[in-house]
Amino acid sequence: NTSEYCSSIAISELSADVLRDLPTAQRFALDIGGSLSKIVYQSKRKWRKTFVVYDENTDSHLYSTQELEKEADCLHFIKFETRLLENCLDFIYDNLKGSDGRGLEILRNSPLRVTGGGAHKYRLAIEAKLGCVVEKEDEMTCLVRGCAFMLKHIPGELFSYEHDSSPPCCFADELSDGGEPFLLVNIGSGVSMLKVENETTFTRIGGTSLGGGTFWGLGSLLAGTSDFDELLEIASQGDHRNVDMLVGDIYGSESASSVHGLSADIIASSFGKASKADCKEFSKPDLLRSLLITVSNNIGQLAFLYASRHQLRRIVFAGFFIRGHLLTMRTLTYGVNFWSQGSVKAYFLRHEGYLGAIGAFVRGLEKDRRIGVLTGSWAENLCTSSSFDVGSWQGMAALELDKRKELTDFPLLRDRLDYAPDTWDLSQAAFQSARLNPPPSQDLSAREYWLNCFEASIDRHQQRAVLSQPDSPSAMERGEAFRLAYQNFFKEARANPVAFGQLTVRRILDVQEHCLRESGFPDPFWELKREENEVALGGLQSRLSHLASLPSADLPAALIRGLLGGNVFDWGAGRVAELLAERGKQFGLNEAMEQLQPRPWLVDDLDAWTSRLKAGVYTCAIVFVDNSGCDLLLGVLPFAIDLLDRGVKVILAANHGPALNDVTIFELRALIRRVGSFVPRVADALSSGRLLLAGTGSSSPCLDLRYVSVEVADACRQEQVDLVVIEGMGRAVHTNLYAKFSCDCLKLAVLKMPGWLTGWAAICSQ
Amino acid sequence: NTSEYCSSIAISELSADVLRDLPTAQRFALDIGGSLSKIVYQSKRKWRKTFVVYDENTDSHLYSTQELEKEADCLHFIKFETRLLENCLDFIYDNLKGSDGRGLEILRNSPLRVTGGGAHKYRLAIEAKLGCVVEKEDEMTCLVRGCAFMLKHIPGELFSYEHDSSPPCCFADELSDGGEPFLLVNIGSGVSMLKVENETTFTRIGGTSLGGGTFWGLGSLLAGTSDFDELLEIASQGDHRNVDMLVGDIYGSESASSVHGLSADIIASSFGKASKADCKEFSKPDLLRSLLITVSNNIGQLAFLYASRHQLRRIVFAGFFIRGHLLTMRTLTYGVNFWSQGSVKAYFLRHEGYLGAIGAFVRGLEKDRRIGVLTGSWAENLCTSSSFDVGSWQGMAALELDKRKELTDFPLLRDRLDYAPDTWDLSQAAFQSARLNPPPSQDLSAREYWLNCFEASIDRHQQRAVLSQPDSPSAMERGEAFRLAYQNFFKEARANPVAFGQLTVRRILDVQEHCLRESGFPDPFWELKREENEVALGGLQSRLSHLASLPSADLPAALIRGLLGGNVFDWGAGRVAELLAERGKQFGLNEAMEQLQPRPWLVDDLDAWTSRLKAGVYTCAIVFVDNSGCDLLLGVLPFAIDLLDRGVKVILAANHGPALNDVTIFELRALIRRVGSFVPRVADALSSGRLLLAGTGSSSPCLDLRYVSVEVADACRQEQVDLVVIEGMGRAVHTNLYAKFSCDCLKLAVLKMPGWLTGWAAICSQ
Repeated sequence: NTSEYCSSIAISELSADVLRDLPTAQRFALDIGGSLSKIVYQSKRKWRKTFVVYDENTDSHLYSTQELEKEADCLHFIKFETRLLENCLDFIYDNLKGSDGRGLEILRNSPLRVTGGGAHKYRLAIEAKLGCVVEKEDEMTCLVRGCAFMLKHIPGELFSYEHDSSPPCCFADELSDGGEPFLLVNIGSGVSMLKVENETTFTRIGGTSLGGGTFWGLGSLLAGTSDFDELLEIASQGDHRNVDMLVGDIYGSESASSVHGLSADIIASSFGKASKADCKEFSKPDLLRSLLITVSNNIGQLAFLYASRHQLRRIVFAGFFIRGHLLTMRTLTYGVNFWSQGSVKAYFLRHEGYLGAIGAFVRGLEKDRRIGVLTGSWAENLCTSSSFDVGSWQGMAALELDKRKELTDFPLLRDRLDYAPDTWDLSQAAFQSARLNPPPSQDLSAREYWLNCFEASIDRHQQRAVLSQPDSPSAMERGEAFRLAYQNFFKEARANPVAFGQLTVRRILDVQEHCLRESGFPDPFWELKREENEVALGGLQSRLSHLASLPSADLPAALIRGLLGGNVFDWGAGRVAELLAERGKQFGLNEAMEQLQPRPWLVDDLDAWTSRLKAGVYTCAIVFVDNSGCDLLLGVLPFAIDLLDRGVKVILAANHGPALNDVTIFELRALIRRVGSFVPRVADALSSGRLLLAGTGSSSPCLDLRYVSVEVADACRQEQVDLVVIEGMGRAVHTNLYAKFSCDCLKLAVLKMPGWLTGWAAICSQ
Repeated sequence: NTSEYCSSIAISELSADVLRDLPTAQRFALDIGGSLSKIVYQSKRKWRKTFVVYDENTDSHLYSTQELEKEADCLHFIKFETRLLENCLDFIYDNLKGSDGRGLEILRNSPLRVTGGGAHKYRLAIEAKLGCVVEKEDEMTCLVRGCAFMLKHIPGELFSYEHDSSPPCCFADELSDGGEPFLLVNIGSGVSMLKVENETTFTRIGGTSLGGGTFWGLGSLLAGTSDFDELLEIASQGDHRNVDMLVGDIYGSESASSVHGLSADIIASSFGKASKADCKEFSKPDLLRSLLITVSNNIGQLAFLYASRHQLRRIVFAGFFIRGHLLTMRTLTYGVNFWSQGSVKAYFLRHEGYLGAIGAFVRGLEKDRRIGVLTGSWAENLCTSSSFDVGSWQGMAALELDKRKELTDFPLLRDRLDYAPDTWDLSQAAFQSARLNPPPSQDLSAREYWLNCFEASIDRHQQRAVLSQPDSPSAMERGEAFRLAYQNFFKEARANPVAFGQLTVRRILDVQEHCLRESGFPDPFWELKREENEVALGGLQSRLSHLASLPSADLPAALIRGLLGGNVFDWGAGRVAELLAERGKQFGLNEAMEQLQPRPWLVDDLDAWTSRLKAGVYTCAIVFVDNSGCDLLLGVLPFAIDLLDRGVKVILAANHGPALNDVTIFELRALIRRVGSFVPRVADALSSGRLLLAGTGSSSPCLDLRYVSVEVADACRQEQVDLVVIEGMGRAVHTNLYAKFSCDCLKLAVLKMPGWLTGWAAICSQ
């Protein structure tokens, strides 16, 4: 009995985590496709969050940190087979009803936006089941809106298939800012081709009925199974050359190269060998592979023709047919490359399946004049979202986006489109950096090196997280959850380096933060940071006196050396963390500076920097700070005070959210206020607006300059910043190593190599 | 045992008539496709032919007619399955060897030109078997050359699929003169798309591997049979809507029309229903129909895209995939129309399968600098060629082209591209004439009327043919062969009105002539014509005296009336033939004139003609004459003499070959010489060049002005002809009724309706 079977699947599948926030759901939208459906809903999730607290009116100037629960917006995306739709609606209904009925009330107060072919077919069923009004949203409009949403909010959403890379997915960012029109090819059961000019302007310029449904349908007939993913899996094991008639089969392989200049491998006739009455049995894998290639290649060719007809140089493929399946992407890309001779480029989306659903959601907000709900930026939750599993897709899948502050481009980037935050792409088996040539041989194992390095720190981070909440009875359990989630990431990343988009050190650190936050550990270092800040505050006066005693000619070098020394205090680097934990308060700035390799450092532009500084060319500097304690207070702050003394305005920019022992903007504000109480120059600069403090909008030890807070961007423009200072391995080496700015940039970091600490002081003039 | 099976098929199939001229074969060319192969060979065929004989040097001026055998060039085209290739080569070898080895010697003296994919694969096998050198010819070059050859020599080669017509094939002639570039789409196992600018200039601009091989291959897998034609036959019985996902299936049929403006019938996803795991069995006809539509539609769409990319408005589809199969043509046409919104038009070729082979043949002649072999025109032998069997193709098929004089456009046509020779298209169930609106209701059965009319004459023609060769022992047997062949035509034409291209009265008459000639009866009327000419010659002097006695004002009317009276003597018209046979020599011009309806005739421009004539505006007239005897000598000749008297030069144009009792140019020359002996005005005009005699190049009672002799065309230009006179039902009504000229045209005929003879005298001013 089919319906019983469906319903038993539904119960087990729908009870998954992906629907756990249903009781606080605020809005829904649905995309009902011929075979797969997607739900998007917005919920209020409760997070533990740390708050820095201090009393402005007392003189103690002490600050403390509190953890509180706070609601935040979350967007949930769930994918399931359309045959489970009714069960899914039942599940939703029960959950909304269970939560004191408030959810149902919300649902009934505004129309439910539904897109996809099934919007028409299932309208009455949905209305009857949920008691709401269904409003159908145009599929193509939703698709385009959804595509624009994903490209805007999810970095590394877009990638191209590069056959010579391993894995063959190369992430791009080229369409994220709109720019030039592109062709959006949606491969569902059928195929639609849209010319997209911007998120609201597009035209359907073509399509074909040979789509995903054709592979699925013919594939089911040929293989005797109707499981789409099974069909793809079988196809991946086949050899189409046993089924297709190749150029070589017609012309004879030896002479093929001389005929029409065609390679003998080119398919002359898809399934061309299957008609021969020689009683040969064809294998299912061979047949399915041929079928997949036939359909994909044809779509690629048609897409190229429509792109070229409309002078579009970029094609974005989306729709359930792709499912991250390598062979499909390979053939689509091959088709586009072959027919366009490289003049048109094919791209794919990591979350292609969700475009229609999020589009319907956005359309709903627009129509209800509540678009403000989406204001700001949304970030992929790397802990709760399904990984991007190239080559298969099992049952349900989910994506969660957390709302964050509104973020924007850093205005001092010389060329926004040329900017890529990450220095090394660890996704690639062969270490790749376009600008490092030839790559150092040890970098061939760069991925393993960094994965091992961070995986080895799991225990340490788990321990610190649990210790950070001594009063919580659930801390142990949640610590274990963190470990499992984070370990799972390493397992997936090793099996599939592009499971979460491009694999970079930044990505690994983001996953770590997301897993901690998801396990209820928003800031494991809060107490350590506070303690280190207290120690550093205690040493600031003498540090400033020492610097003041130096001949002015020596000052720039001493400040940079101090800054590098301070940057040793990085609890994110395993080796240093052990050192710091072992030697504790015995290890101060001077000890750190002694550990540093003598000059010249690995990269040593100190002399150039000194002469630039003395030339007095700067008006205002923005300094992206790194660690708390010695780094911030004894390294960066004296450097900043010196700039102020030289008449250069200073903006200190710190993370909004916690990440390792990096200082947050909230801590920074408390600390600088405290410093002001005993360093009048700082108090003056602060009150006169010559010293500014800004939050970057980030919660990462790295820095993606495509996503900085509006506050930072505005300050840079208003203060006419002409010097960018970036500090720390994460911000200046793992990211931004090759970033180019429209003004000078000083990049400072300590490289913590085994048994060796060396400085990295690079000045890049504009 | 497969090879035994093949060989037994080969023996029976290859012994067919289609290879009967092998022993006199002069040249070969081959096109070896993935599934079908084609042979073209040129032979010398022996025909019985009539010759008019007279002695220039005697005074008797009598002429006689002799039948002699004469060799003529013939081009043979044969189509067979590639798996039979080796058997076919054996058969050829044996035949060539059998004919005293001369054929083999010829074959070995110049390379055998072979094209098609298999040219490479089978080269060594062919060389070994036939002992010749194989030279491979580029497929696409051959295809284009072949297409140009067919379009040039075979009128009605090109047709479009018009769904609202019945049968849906509408013959066109629009590409025959080269003109604007077009897209040639060759659907073999795979598909090639060529932009053709002229017969030697083309570019391959696209293609797809989803071609005939894909339908064949996938179709075999789905249906469990590998017979291509069986697959097509099964497909024609299916309903693709059971397999394909339609727009209505997704959107719900009731609301479909409001969505995207798409009809619910449009296929959203080919095979989109086949993936549903509901254990439903799909029927083979439904699956195959869906497959055929999938492949055809896709080719149509790609063809449109490539055409549009290169600004081509016409697409010619060719290749074995089509095989005149209606559903295939319908879907290809639908695809082109749908995607181009009517801006691009799809065409097909009756002999699409032979393009490559004839192309290779032509290329071979070019390379051997023997292109002169093809000089002149080639005409389809309607008796020996396979009919154009829409919807199926059984085993072998053949086409034969007979060489004829070089023919060209009649230079006085006002607009060559606008000219269509035939007045009525009998192919169409609904009588169609673009210019007759509304059509008379009785014309709905026009096809049946004419088919019955001509079929009823078979016995009469058979009898006359046998009687025309009283000394031949085989005449009876050949008369029976004629009857069978001609009857077969009527059977095929009734079953499939487009079996031989557009069905017209002209076509039927051509078939009759071809069947007679093929049965060894080149001129059944030769003795009758001779007798009638003698009788008419005897009455000429008194006819001229009578006309001379008339007041000059009455002369033009008397001449036209005489001309119409003469035109009654038409042995092609059954009713008149009976009358003539019954009353014999008792029935003369005066009796005929009495039978004519009094003025006004059905069309009666006599007064207009008289005033044009009296205005004396003409310099030279060409008169296309019709029947022998009274018609030519008592009707046309006095009319011509009057023109000469008025100072107008006259060209009398008669058929080259015999057709019914129509006078031939050879008879005409003998007769006019005879007349000159007793009518000095005629002898003078002849010797002074004011009266010219020309052969039209035709052997038909009708007149296709796209194909007239170079002699006629040159004379019109040299003599500055400014009056065209066309006489007879066949030349002036069944054809050329709507022909427009760059000078005045007088069209004269007697309409022989049951119990009613009326005149048709139309003057069309330029």
